[in-house]
Formats: sequence, C-alpha cells, structure tokens
Amino acid sequence: MSAHPRLSLNQATVKHASLLDALDATREAGIGAIGLWREPVAEVGLEKACALVTDSGLRVSSLCRGGFFTAPPGPARAAALHDNRRAIEETAALAAAGAPGSAPVLVLVAGGLPDGDRDLPGARERARDAIGDLAGDAAAAGVVLAVEPMHPVFAADRGVVSTLGQALDLAEQFPAAAVGVVVDTYHVWWDPDLPAQVARAGRGGRIASYQVADWVTPLGPDVLTSRGLPGEGHVDLPAVSALVERAGFGGDVEVEVFDRALWEDDPRAVAVRTAAAFAVAAGVRVRA
Amino acid sequence: MSAHPRLSLNQATVKHASLLDALDATREAGIGAIGLWREPVAEVGLEKACALVTDSGLRVSSLCRGGFFTAPPGPARAAALHDNRRAIEETAALAAAGAPGSAPVLVLVAGGLPDGDRDLPGARERARDAIGDLAGDAAAAGVVLAVEPMHPVFAADRGVVSTLGQALDLAEQFPAAAVGVVVDTYHVWWDPDLPAQVARAGRGGRIASYQVADWVTPLGPDVLTSRGLPGEGHVDLPAVSALVERAGFGGDVEVEVFDRALWEDDPRAVAVRTAAAFAVAAGVRVRA
Repeated sequence: MSAHPRLSLNQATVKHASLLDALDATREAGIGAIGLWREPVAEVGLEKACALVTDSGLRVSSLCRGGFFTAPPGPARAAALHDNRRAIEETAALAAAGAPGSAPVLVLVAGGLPDGDRDLPGARERARDAIGDLAGDAAAAGVVLAVEPMHPVFAADRGVVSTLGQALDLAEQFPAAAVGVVVDTYHVWWDPDLPAQVARAGRGGRIASYQVADWVTPLGPDVLTSRGLPGEGHVDLPAVSALVERAGFGGDVEVEVFDRALWEDDPRAVAVRTAAAFAVAAGVRVRA
Repeated sequence: MSAHPRLSLNQATVKHASLLDALDATREAGIGAIGLWREPVAEVGLEKACALVTDSGLRVSSLCRGGFFTAPPGPARAAALHDNRRAIEETAALAAAGAPGSAPVLVLVAGGLPDGDRDLPGARERARDAIGDLAGDAAAAGVVLAVEPMHPVFAADRGVVSTLGQALDLAEQFPAAAVGVVVDTYHVWWDPDLPAQVARAGRGGRIASYQVADWVTPLGPDVLTSRGLPGEGHVDLPAVSALVERAGFGGDVEVEVFDRALWEDDPRAVAVRTAAAFAVAAGVRVRA
C-alpha cells in the first residue's frame, strides 16, 4: 500500500496508540512520515524512541509540543522554559533518528490566560518573551520553534496566539532558522487575512509546518475534539494547500485530527482512512 | 431601583420572556433601555409592540436581527432581502416608539456557508452584495445597518464576517449613516487587532452598537450558549469599554448573554442580576 508521498500522520490522530503501534500503523498504511508527540515518546524514553523511529524507516515531520509559557515570572515560568529546553533536545534527537527528509520542528502552543488573569496582551507579551528566551537554544540545536496560532475559540484556555499574522509578528523578531510558524487549517481557515499572511510567511521562510484538519459542524460537546479528516467539513482545503504551496512550502503535510471517534478506532484503520481522505481531499500536490 | 444609566438589556438575555414581560423586567430593574428581538415583537405584532414600547418609557437601543443573506442568487436570497426590508421598517417603527435617545439600529448577522458550500470568500462577497442591496432602504428609513462580526467559531454555520476589521472593510463601502458595525465583546475580545480596529471604527463614525458579554470556560456543550454576564469570564471588559469610549461611542450599552441557565431563570431576577453585574464589571462610564 502506498499513500500520498508528502503525507505525515500526526500522532494526535491516533492518540491512544503507543509509539510503536503508531509507527507500525503509519508504515503499514504506506505513509512515509509521522508527526510525534512527547507523551508517547516519554513512555518508552528518548533513546528507545529514537531507535524505534530509525527502525521504522519513517521521516519525522515535527514534535508536538512545547510552549505553555504564559505564566508570569516565577517557578511556573522557569519550569516551562526548562521543559521546553528538553523538548528542543528531543526534537533534534528524533529528527536525527528519522529517515532523510525529517524536519527538526518543535510545535509550540503558547498556552492560555493564567488563572484569574484577564490581561490578554500581557500573556501574549510573555509568550513572546519566552520564545526569545528559547530561540538561542533552538538555533544551537538546529531546531525550528514553530509557533502555532490557535483558533480564537481557545484564546482563553489554551493558546493566546490567535492568528497567523500575530504568530508572524512574533516569529519575525527572531531568525527564521530558529523561529517559524505552523499553518493548521483547523485553526486558521476562517481568517479573512489568510492569503496575505500565508504569502508573508512564505516570503520570510517561516512556514515550518503545514497541518490539515477539517472544521466539522455541528460542533460536538467538546470543541477541542470536534475536528474531521480532510473532506469531512467546511474547509476548502485545496484552496489553503494552494496558498501554502505557492508560498514555497514543500515539506511533509501532517494530518492532525483530534476526534474521539478516531481515537477509539484501531490505529491501523485510522491510518488507512487518513491516507485515503488526504489523497482525495487535501489538495496537496505530490511534488511541491 | 436604578441601574447604570447607559445599560440596555438585550432581550436575548431573557430569551423566553414575552415582549411585555421583558419590558416590565427591564423597567422594574431600573434599566432605561432595551435591545429588542424580532421574534417576540412578531408574537404580538408590530403595532402592538410599538404601543407596549411607548408605554414602557424605555429607550430602544437596537433590533436583532437581520442578515442571513449568504445564499446564492435565487429564491432564498430574494426571500432574505425581502425579510431584511421588513426588519428595516420594524427597526424604524420601534425606535420611533421608544423614549428619546432610542437608536434606529438593525443588527445584522451575515449567516454561514450554504449547505455543502466551502467557498468562504464567495459567501463573504454575497454578504457584502446583500448589504449593498439594502443600504439604500436603510438610509431612506433612517436606519443604520449594524454589521456584527461573529466569533470565528461561528464562521461555518452562523456568521461569515469574523473580525471587526472585516466588518469595517464591508461597512466602509457605504455611507456611515446607513451601515455601521457592532462591537460585541464576546465575539471580538480575542482579536490582537482590536484596539486599532475599534479606533478605526470610531474615526469613521461606524460604531452603531456596543454589546457586552463575557467569555466563560470551560465552554459548555453548546458554544452558542456558553456566555457569561459581565465579570463571569476572561474578558477584560473595562479595557474594551475604554477603547469603545475613546472611539467616541456614547450610546446605550447592551448586555446580550446567550446562556441556558439565565433563560431558565425568572426574567425579573435576570434583569436585576444583569444590572448588578454591569455596574461592577463592564467598566462603562456613566457619561461617555
């Protein structure tokens, strides 16, 4: 079986699979790349995870995720920065363990407002400062910090970086080799400024990751897990993919779908469904 | 009892009350103005509704709502435009029936993507065209069409106008006397560009309505009805109110909260709670 050559299965789509099961499901579905998550990597330990990745023959397209660094100065912020430095090391190691074409990209989610705090501009400033604190470590490790704008529905409790333009305002304060952005269709599809901002990201060499997931209605009881495979929802994925390719991104394209029904299914079946949905509906060219 | 002199109770906050009950609850809570909805007005008929409004002694701050005009050319679009023309007449009549200081403002929600349609830019164009078709009617009736940007969580199924900047791009194609915008904190609080866009709206005389509701987490099972009274959530309402006032808006400020728990409560109790929450948490000056 052979899937689209640029498809990468993000592990969040098969959330409950172990690292080994996720690697096997990806490979057996003919998919050439995987987007890893830190938790299943930690379950087996970094060294063993790297060995498993090498054995799989898969490319690694990113590691999810760092960030969550909107806390004010103090122990919580220091702990977050420490943890992000470890994530940078893990990203470098896992990308080195992956097949040629792997990408040393660490996806960053800023985090939400601290408890009881209503100062959104302040939290956004602290996210910027944290990235500034980490950019040197990333550059030294050859890792790109990929700032992921999150859908505004998550601005309070998950990610205070809400638009691609805002992510770029932030990333552009640092070298492109160290700080880029994620374009995730689920998070940015609604943005009237998307074409201009994707083009801007391309001009600056800032697109570190392109992820596709669809926006499905009616939203389920938990918005976080109300996503769909490509083609299941309202997003004009070929239009967004064309923007991203015109902007010069030619890397692996991750399918990252938080959906409880997928999580309860067999990871192998999910990988096969993902490959089929991606081929039909994502509008990604075989060669960028 | 006397509430904040610029508070208006939007009828959606007491959704299940009849027009008469909503007017009574508003007045008895010492609130001087009300934002009306078309459905409870239609229940008694426009003529009687106007009489009830006059009897109440309340100002009318807006009528909700027109719009829902993203259908492609055909009978559905024609019906939507016809219905909006009726809404314009109702707005003029109800504002005339209200106490001095009433505002002939018709709140417009664009509507979502038509079934099976993924062309978001196309739907946005059609919303613009529909406003163009209605602007002359509004001007002739002395009514302001107030385009309401909706939170991006509703872009697919409710409102394709997603940011204040986008609403202004649209409104500014028409005279300010006919087309303005709504600033609703629930919908726009997350926007990193909010200060600049509120200032722009003020410079152009485009702020036709200011509505306050809070963003509460965790979101309930239905995002639409997961709002809170001022002070219950994450929005820095005094900061947004200061922006709106600096932009020159001095009118009545509506509290519009879609929340099932409020809907199940006694409208009189809800009006009293609203007045208390507004006075404490909205950050609106007594005189703009």
